[in-house]
Amino acid sequence: MLFHVRMNVELPHDLPEKDVADILQREKAYSQELQRTGKWRHIWRIAGQYANISIFDVADNDELHQLLCGLPLFKFMDIQVTPLLRHPSAVRADDS
Amino acid sequence: MLFHVRMNVELPHDLPEKDVADILQREKAYSQELQRTGKWRHIWRIAGQYANISIFDVADNDELHQLLCGLPLFKFMDIQVTPLLRHPSAVRADDS
Amino acid sequence: MLFHVRMNVELPHDLPEKDVADILQREKAYSQELQRTGKWRHIWRIAGQYANISIFDVADNDELHQLLCGLPLFKFMDIQVTPLLRHPSAVRADDS
Amino acid sequence: MLFHVRMNVELPHDLPEKDVADILQREKAYSQELQRTGKWRHIWRIAGQYANISIFDVADNDELHQLLCGLPLFKFMDIQVTPLLRHPSAVRADDS
Amino acid sequence: MLFHVRMNVELPHDLPEKDVADILQREKAYSQELQRTGKWRHIWRIAGQYANISIFDVADNDELHQLLCGLPLFKFMDIQVTPLLRHPSAVRADDS
Amino acid sequence: MLFHVRMNVELPHDLPEKDVADILQREKAYSQELQRTGKWRHIWRIAGQYANISIFDVADNDELHQLLCGLPLFKFMDIQVTPLLRHPSAVRADDS
Amino acid sequence: MLFHVRMNVELPHDLPEKDVADILQREKAYSQELQRTGKWRHIWRIAGQYANISIFDVADNDELHQLLCGLPLFKFMDIQVTPLLRHPSAVRADDS
Amino acid sequence: MLFHVRMNVELPHDLPEKDVADILQREKAYSQELQRTGKWRHIWRIAGQYANISIFDVADNDELHQLLCGLPLFKFMDIQVTPLLRHPSAVRADDS
Amino acid sequence: MLFHVRMNVELPHDLPEKDVADILQREKAYSQELQRTGKWRHIWRIAGQYANISIFDVADNDELHQLLCGLPLFKFMDIQVTPLLRHPSAVRADDS
Amino acid sequence: MLFHVRMNVELPHDLPEKDVADILQREKAYSQELQRTGKWRHIWRIAGQYANISIFDVADNDELHQLLCGLPLFKFMDIQVTPLLRHPSAVRADDS
Repeated sequence: MLFHVRMNVELPHDLPEKDVADILQREKAYSQELQRTGKWRHIWRIAGQYANISIFDVADNDELHQLLCGLPLFKFMDIQVTPLLRHPSAVRADDS
Repeated sequence: MLFHVRMNVELPHDLPEKDVADILQREKAYSQELQRTGKWRHIWRIAGQYANISIFDVADNDELHQLLCGLPLFKFMDIQVTPLLRHPSAVRADDS
Repeated sequence: MLFHVRMNVELPHDLPEKDVADILQREKAYSQELQRTGKWRHIWRIAGQYANISIFDVADNDELHQLLCGLPLFKFMDIQVTPLLRHPSAVRADDS
Repeated sequence: MLFHVRMNVELPHDLPEKDVADILQREKAYSQELQRTGKWRHIWRIAGQYANISIFDVADNDELHQLLCGLPLFKFMDIQVTPLLRHPSAVRADDS
Repeated sequence: MLFHVRMNVELPHDLPEKDVADILQREKAYSQELQRTGKWRHIWRIAGQYANISIFDVADNDELHQLLCGLPLFKFMDIQVTPLLRHPSAVRADDS
Repeated sequence: MLFHVRMNVELPHDLPEKDVADILQREKAYSQELQRTGKWRHIWRIAGQYANISIFDVADNDELHQLLCGLPLFKFMDIQVTPLLRHPSAVRADDS
Repeated sequence: MLFHVRMNVELPHDLPEKDVADILQREKAYSQELQRTGKWRHIWRIAGQYANISIFDVADNDELHQLLCGLPLFKFMDIQVTPLLRHPSAVRADDS
Repeated sequence: MLFHVRMNVELPHDLPEKDVADILQREKAYSQELQRTGKWRHIWRIAGQYANISIFDVADNDELHQLLCGLPLFKFMDIQVTPLLRHPSAVRADDS
Repeated sequence: MLFHVRMNVELPHDLPEKDVADILQREKAYSQELQRTGKWRHIWRIAGQYANISIFDVADNDELHQLLCGLPLFKFMDIQVTPLLRHPSAVRADDS
Repeated sequence: MLFHVRMNVELPHDLPEKDVADILQREKAYSQELQRTGKWRHIWRIAGQYANISIFDVADNDELHQLLCGLPLFKFMDIQVTPLLRHPSAVRADDS
């Protein structure tokens, strides 16, 4: 089941650089592991913003939430979730 | 080059049913042809709304605009475009 | 799987009364049938508005969308969908 | 009498972890006690957000306010209240 | 129980003058009757707008909704309801 | 002359409790004194929010401003003022 | 007593030209008469918009409302009123 | 050339009182000097807010900006500029 | 003097095609004539929208308004004007 | 390929003056170097705001993002990107 997720990151400007580096390293590892399992199906950077648009493919709302609130950056993010489904005009097998 | 496009459709309620059916048939054909060329890379329906979220892969802004304003539903749509790029944490070859 | 759905109804003021009555009768029958199956789990009127807040319990995003766009009032509604899940503090068995 | 309540939590990022743990423990106990009395009739987590949607069943506006401003997290919450009533199409006995 | 109600009126500009006059006459009679019963406790015009701010004193959400959707102007109004209660600093006996 | 005033309070979460208690005590005394003079004609709490809706009866805009910016909580408030007048359908002598 | 008033005009595009010309002529006469009495103290056009920003000097909220709802364009306007007073730094005698 | 300028002031609540007093004194002197030259043509306080609405009469956009960013409170202000011109219905010689 | 102007076009869907073609032809001629004089310095289409972003170089606010309200599409446009000036970091001679 | 970029700067008020001066010096050098290469084609200050509107001419979305996130002020900016293309009415050779 697919979900469109937009994540905006707002790091407090006075967070120690070392802490930031540590969080970002863990965030990257966490994201890539989920991408490899297929649950985090797509991720794109939005031009000019510290933000991404992602597509998740999960079993249900609960699994989506557990994945999102496990993000190392979760407490610094504003996240908006939009439920998706196969479009009646879609031709690609993997657009659902 | 990738773009995130959100299209909201607002058909006037008093448009004759026959006109609507004609526009929708042409819209579907137009969309599927572009999907097959790979320029309209993804399309998903938003649950509960007459709206879609799409990913376009085009040469430049100009090509994107020509494709969008050629949509049979264009005059009945509110369209928002967001330029995307490969995310530094992306692992899939086709997320750029 | 639970979804929070808010439906605002905006009937064009010049719709013939007979058409309105017909739509509303079909809407009620449609809603009550879905409530009896358990898929439309709750429905409440918002005080002072021609709007409702509902909780749907469906298999997935696709089923939710099919149920919503089958509403006789669908073309006159503004619908917002919010995916829900069991709250970690919930005590009721049926809050998930 | 039913009310729809949406609670968004925004904890300052520099609140000591121990304080946070203490508040959350008291919040959970407070919520569960009210759920057991039937006054906090439903509570659901919103997917991807530190937020919940709840239904309260109280005697009047005053009781609702006293319950909400007694929340241990109250000063860190943005709360929106919407008064509800039985929908004319409702079939469930407990949707009012 | 008190509610703050803001009503904005938007009459279609092409409604026949006679229909408008009829609706407004019925609206005034309806409002004054409710004011005399004490249920519509206050009503004020907002300067420069075809809008009013009112205070209702009703038994519950349901009664409030029945009164509001009985307004002859209801289908031409945008109504926002805010539940009120006695303020801890209030000194007037009738501010609750 | 009547004004509708909505006051939202936002206290910084790290303000010392003693300072808060002092401000609130002065705020209450200030409000009650003005209520007794009749200038602060009504005050109601909004359910679920640290906010109030008030009606002021003052000589002019200037007096209203002097009363509001004298509030001990003024620097922690977001205040919105709406000028009111007697509604043509009003029946109560004191709704103007 | 001074008020800041912003008026946005939205004429239906299918209003007969003759009707528009008639309304605009009456609007101009009405405005100029009020300007000459000093009650409509200032009026400026906003660059690029069918809108104006005005300053009214009236006895009270009631007089302001009567003047505004007497505007021939009133039913085609969106009007926002902001109450003003003398600024403590003002040096001009007529800024109050 | 005339510009409508709205200035909202948001002083950080923990700015030392002495610093605030110093800034406000310099702000007042700066404003009054510009008012006397005629470049800051009008200034009014908005009732209930730490904000003003002003009219500037300057040679061009550049001069307007230099005057505004020279304000001692500039870094604590949210400023919105609207270009004005003589209204075709204006009768006062100095409304342009 | 430079101004940033954003123009959104909203043609009523039931405007006769012949009228639309006539307006668009006159709009194009009007725009190109102003571009050749240098007053309409830049014009760009926004991807995916019936809208443009333009830079005008005019003598003052009044000239800007006369040019804009002379647009054949003016009554079908939503126009937002932002006054610009030379940026202190600009290196191009013609960025002012 | 052209992009419209609006950059709003929000420096924390307690950033040490020396740090601010250093960032601004590096920002200016960075901007001017990109302007000289032609990639940052235009930059204008918005009157009354610590903000600019710029036009970038880059190879693709990716290059735009790399240039923007390399800005020394990037972490203190709110950036909005709008993709542009040649307008069908444009007459200047360099408006595309």
